[in-house]
Amino acid sequence: MNISVLGTGSVGQAIAGRLAGIGHQVFMGTRDVAGSESRTAPDGWGNPAIGTWIKDHPEVKLVTFAESVNRGSDLIVFAMNGHAAFDCLNGIGSQLLAGKVMIDISNPLDFSKGFPPSLFVCNTESLAEQIQQQFPGLKVVKSLNTMSNPVMVNPGLISGDHSVFLSGNDAEAKMVVSGILQSFGWPERNIIDLGDITTARGTEMILPLWVRLYGKLQTPLFNFHVNMAKQ
Amino acid sequence: MNISVLGTGSVGQAIAGRLAGIGHQVFMGTRDVAGSESRTAPDGWGNPAIGTWIKDHPEVKLVTFAESVNRGSDLIVFAMNGHAAFDCLNGIGSQLLAGKVMIDISNPLDFSKGFPPSLFVCNTESLAEQIQQQFPGLKVVKSLNTMSNPVMVNPGLISGDHSVFLSGNDAEAKMVVSGILQSFGWPERNIIDLGDITTARGTEMILPLWVRLYGKLQTPLFNFHVNMAKQ
Repeated sequence: MNISVLGTGSVGQAIAGRLAGIGHQVFMGTRDVAGSESRTAPDGWGNPAIGTWIKDHPEVKLVTFAESVNRGSDLIVFAMNGHAAFDCLNGIGSQLLAGKVMIDISNPLDFSKGFPPSLFVCNTESLAEQIQQQFPGLKVVKSLNTMSNPVMVNPGLISGDHSVFLSGNDAEAKMVVSGILQSFGWPERNIIDLGDITTARGTEMILPLWVRLYGKLQTPLFNFHVNMAKQ
Repeated sequence: MNISVLGTGSVGQAIAGRLAGIGHQVFMGTRDVAGSESRTAPDGWGNPAIGTWIKDHPEVKLVTFAESVNRGSDLIVFAMNGHAAFDCLNGIGSQLLAGKVMIDISNPLDFSKGFPPSLFVCNTESLAEQIQQQFPGLKVVKSLNTMSNPVMVNPGLISGDHSVFLSGNDAEAKMVVSGILQSFGWPERNIIDLGDITTARGTEMILPLWVRLYGKLQTPLFNFHVNMAKQ
């Protein structure tokens, strides 16, 4: 597939690298291509800057947001932080987004008052719903937002069964996303389709617990599993 | 121990029955003892009315809220719905509550606008924090609110390992609660102390996901497990 990955941070890098590694043509979108290419200082967590990463991944094309969606038109992965969503998507425009499937990995985390972060939208709404509402022609599927990026693309890092959720209004779009997840190594039994896009409230609202578990466990290498009754 | 269980609904019944079954003296608190004793119509889910249940459980004493705390002074379990918290606890009064350990199982679920419920407090606050703030002498430990009541008192219903969380400011109170959980059958490795009472935001905010999973799975017999990286 020709895939657009919007975002050049650690989530974008993990997703883009993994998709390219399994044979997809990946167009990574950024606001400012030259600016991104010139960035070489690792972030506070030791993740490589996009300028370094893209040199190490010549199979991934770094282009503008709009060009990324234009050329990676089979699937869009929104891998930026939640605050950036509307700036980025409005810039691309509803015409270019119409009809496309988009995995929304973002979370509405607000760190403006320090730790722990709160959510800038929650409870009776979700960021995924806001995006779906703003771009009715886009087929938004919320997924992968409940775990750290190494786990997203390599579920085998975690022991045993563990869960990934899908929320979206379009059944076919969810099948496309499920296929991508399975190609990352997610067994179908661990992919839980929660229902329509409003169910993204639930997965976005798990973040406050995720953040505290990260603090407690001192590693992002964990994930939630929905464990069922004994047969 | 002499234990106060506040609430006569299905959660209160499950907790009171289990605690009595393992040898504790349980004082179940209700607003109106005679009124509760006279209620015999099962609820919409087929759970027995308290009047029927208490006749079948003569080992549990049905008393007023205040008498329940007075006589069950070793531990309080708040097992009512979140809306009822301040009415009940203010009625008992801070003097009687001071110094006691209270497991808060309640969730701030608001069904006033139908399904799915929203939370009437969340994000930058939690019901557990509000209770702790209103009653500084009470040692509030949020726990067990992330699962259905059969699972709370009988974790062996669910296959494999699955998690229960603790949030609270008082380390000794959390040890007391951990001991109770272990007596219910929770292995210590599955009891996760998230930290202070503000971490209850995370566990209360998991409810919107829980509710959707319940809809999807068509059974309340599931629970979340925090699954770690392979060793």
